[in-house]
Amino acid sequence: MPDAPAAWIDEITWTADGLVPVIAQDHETGRILMFAWMNRAALEQTVATGEAVYFSRSRGRLWHKGEQSGHVQRVHDIRLDCDGDVILLCIEQIGHIACHTGRESCFYRHLHNNEWQITDPVLKSPDEIYG
Amino acid sequence: MPDAPAAWIDEITWTADGLVPVIAQDHETGRILMFAWMNRAALEQTVATGEAVYFSRSRGRLWHKGEQSGHVQRVHDIRLDCDGDVILLCIEQIGHIACHTGRESCFYRHLHNNEWQITDPVLKSPDEIYG
Repeated sequence: MPDAPAAWIDEITWTADGLVPVIAQDHETGRILMFAWMNRAALEQTVATGEAVYFSRSRGRLWHKGEQSGHVQRVHDIRLDCDGDVILLCIEQIGHIACHTGRESCFYRHLHNNEWQITDPVLKSPDEIYG
Repeated sequence: MPDAPAAWIDEITWTADGLVPVIAQDHETGRILMFAWMNRAALEQTVATGEAVYFSRSRGRLWHKGEQSGHVQRVHDIRLDCDGDVILLCIEQIGHIACHTGRESCFYRHLHNNEWQITDPVLKSPDEIYG
């Protein structure tokens, strides 16, 4: 028997390209880990599997986060904003590394004295993660 | 004497429309309050004034958050992601209401039993805020 039509997914306002921006936040610490995009299929797979699946705009395909690195994201909560055009994923980051640079978060730089200063250490070298 | 050229702003990767997505996070609680966009002028004003200034795509103009409601956002930290194309603002939300619906956060719904369920109360009616 086919699944019931997912009316909730039709409440999302997609971009002209069929995408929605997604913020991934650590469900325990509240730290923002990364920002990416989903299309409808990515969101459906995310809900079905409980692991974050994005749409990679550079590669033009679904991207199961952690497929290479093992650093998958277990989804604890999916939130939608008032305009229905931004999604917030509350996740558990396996391996505690969300960024391809080997850091916990992609937001590892902050503006200080007119410069982007790095505040976070590399936890594991990308060579080791992807090698 | 003119200001020195802001090299840090040129490290940002802007969209074809000259925008960058911005996540606003409560600097104390870590709660994600809203998501919006900035152009170069908005970011420059944000840095210069210490209060969040966005670019409203619907109105096609700079939008000093709180200009009508008084719910301005005092900026505590400005972070940039690994690709240089997403900004994270850590802010203090004056009035504790970021959403135009009168809620603390725009992300006041979550997916539960295939429905977007409202989890957050309206703290102040929009009529009262904008009336």
